[in-house]
Amino acid sequence: MADETADGAIRHGGDLGEASLLFPRAPEPWIDLSTGINPIPYPWPAPEASAFTRLPAKAELAALEAAAAAAYGAPPERVVAAPGTQALIDLLPRLRPPGRVVVLGPTYAEHAAAWARGGHAVAAVADLRDIGEADVAVVVTPNNPDGRVVPVSDLAAAAAGLAARGGWLVVDEAFADLEPVESLCGAVPPACLVLRSFGKTYGLAGLRLGFAVAGEPLVGLLRRGIGPWAVSGPAIAVGRCALADAAWRHEAVAARGRDAARLDALLERAGGRIVGGTRLFRTADFPDGPGLFDRLGRAGIFVRRFEATPARLRFGLPPDAQAWSRLAAALRER
Amino acid sequence: MADETADGAIRHGGDLGEASLLFPRAPEPWIDLSTGINPIPYPWPAPEASAFTRLPAKAELAALEAAAAAAYGAPPERVVAAPGTQALIDLLPRLRPPGRVVVLGPTYAEHAAAWARGGHAVAAVADLRDIGEADVAVVVTPNNPDGRVVPVSDLAAAAAGLAARGGWLVVDEAFADLEPVESLCGAVPPACLVLRSFGKTYGLAGLRLGFAVAGEPLVGLLRRGIGPWAVSGPAIAVGRCALADAAWRHEAVAARGRDAARLDALLERAGGRIVGGTRLFRTADFPDGPGLFDRLGRAGIFVRRFEATPARLRFGLPPDAQAWSRLAAALRER
Repeated sequence: MADETADGAIRHGGDLGEASLLFPRAPEPWIDLSTGINPIPYPWPAPEASAFTRLPAKAELAALEAAAAAAYGAPPERVVAAPGTQALIDLLPRLRPPGRVVVLGPTYAEHAAAWARGGHAVAAVADLRDIGEADVAVVVTPNNPDGRVVPVSDLAAAAAGLAARGGWLVVDEAFADLEPVESLCGAVPPACLVLRSFGKTYGLAGLRLGFAVAGEPLVGLLRRGIGPWAVSGPAIAVGRCALADAAWRHEAVAARGRDAARLDALLERAGGRIVGGTRLFRTADFPDGPGLFDRLGRAGIFVRRFEATPARLRFGLPPDAQAWSRLAAALRER
Repeated sequence: MADETADGAIRHGGDLGEASLLFPRAPEPWIDLSTGINPIPYPWPAPEASAFTRLPAKAELAALEAAAAAAYGAPPERVVAAPGTQALIDLLPRLRPPGRVVVLGPTYAEHAAAWARGGHAVAAVADLRDIGEADVAVVVTPNNPDGRVVPVSDLAAAAAGLAARGGWLVVDEAFADLEPVESLCGAVPPACLVLRSFGKTYGLAGLRLGFAVAGEPLVGLLRRGIGPWAVSGPAIAVGRCALADAAWRHEAVAARGRDAARLDALLERAGGRIVGGTRLFRTADFPDGPGLFDRLGRAGIFVRRFEATPARLRFGLPPDAQAWSRLAAALRER
């Protein structure tokens, strides 16, 4: 989730430069809870030297996409790897002529911003039944920041309507990996595209890796649009290994689920009303959201706030015992 | 350099999958001389864990761009980092409405292909004075594969003409780093864009890193088009270190210059007429180019050939003593 600042730039989590500007006297090190990135990264193997030196070979990319297909339950020929889902979000609006785009919101702001930059007319809708005659509909599910899940049957119905008039359905499943939700990946409808994030689930956001699982004709358009050698050698090597590790993912579901429940309890004790979330972030409304944002910031804890809903704050999971106890202490103060 | 195959895909160097298909009984390991990538990579430091786990911060990206600016003699605010120059080549045609594009050729085929994919009308010209009323002109200098250098004064004149009618000049200096050539980076004209490759010079093509040095209004367009977090954490960390190491670059100029001279001597002894090249590849015409391509392939040495000029072969630099002696032996056979 991100929102527009006064100068039109989008504010994101995950950049402590902003935190230090806002709270120059905060104790270091910062605890960055401003993202939904898994704080316990996959224990990645150091990539071989050739991953750095050689151009990634087609066969290596195909093996990465096959590993992603297996992890997501998707047919391999439907999977396109990209240097992060953000690259796909930026690419999509350039792949069709300007039209009418609706985004089921409020949600991650980069979707609306990317389509608007591409010259499309963008509107927010609160219900998937209100997409009207839009050419493109964008749905984030589970949603960021409130965790709302749109049933696959509703998505399929929307996709059919859009496909019939040459439109697209974009489904951002960035936070689906660790959730008990049905995915559209197993049977992507025509003219539908599902985004899956690698960096968030595996705690490896710096690698820049993400995937699209797409129906026809989108899968070919995306493959050509992304171009050759878009994904780095280290991302291919680490990605193949991590995506094939079902046991790690299984354990992450359990461990991050326990973290999420522990975080909910802390937030509720601090007066928060849990709005929702996923196993990688929790969102709550507070009697004094801006005040709590400041209190946490002065304690060196950076969380996400939202300009349109000042009561609301989103918390990523603390990475270790010290961060948990600093968060608990900061939430306890009055 | 790459050319179109019968099915419209572009053939590139650097993918030994193709070599193994063509020469299934060749001795392994393959010696890959099909690229212009420095075979002696920069001794990169292992990136810190945070380069893998955290989203790259704005300040880190700015420091990378500042290091590139210093290395290229460019003003820092003119430099935009990208996950490889190919990403920029793919992006550019989507940043302006379809128009007339001329490419000074023959040259690296991805330029013409990317503009054509973007709906532009693309023509090849042999002389920069023949760009006529084109909206965009693309010049690779030093050129791949023949090493031709276009003087900066000619480029500036072409840029002025293009800028006057709202056009762009794209100058691909992918192979300029190690050459004694004047660069346009120090004073990029308005509506002109210079591409610089990181992977080729530093032998780190798998990292995916490249730069544009651009005048107004292109620099802003590119920055927005590339989007946030396009460059990976490992690429930022390694790139900052390598670009700041002027001593390594200085030594690479000398060492790769010696390699290039040694390669020219081998090729001439084998009946080749040197057409040109750079310190990272040499191009020669042979009495029987296809025959020599086959002979080398059967010896496990993969070089670049060109469909339109069968006599012509391009050789990257051998990486070590064993590769040099296998190449010398294969060239000696008749």
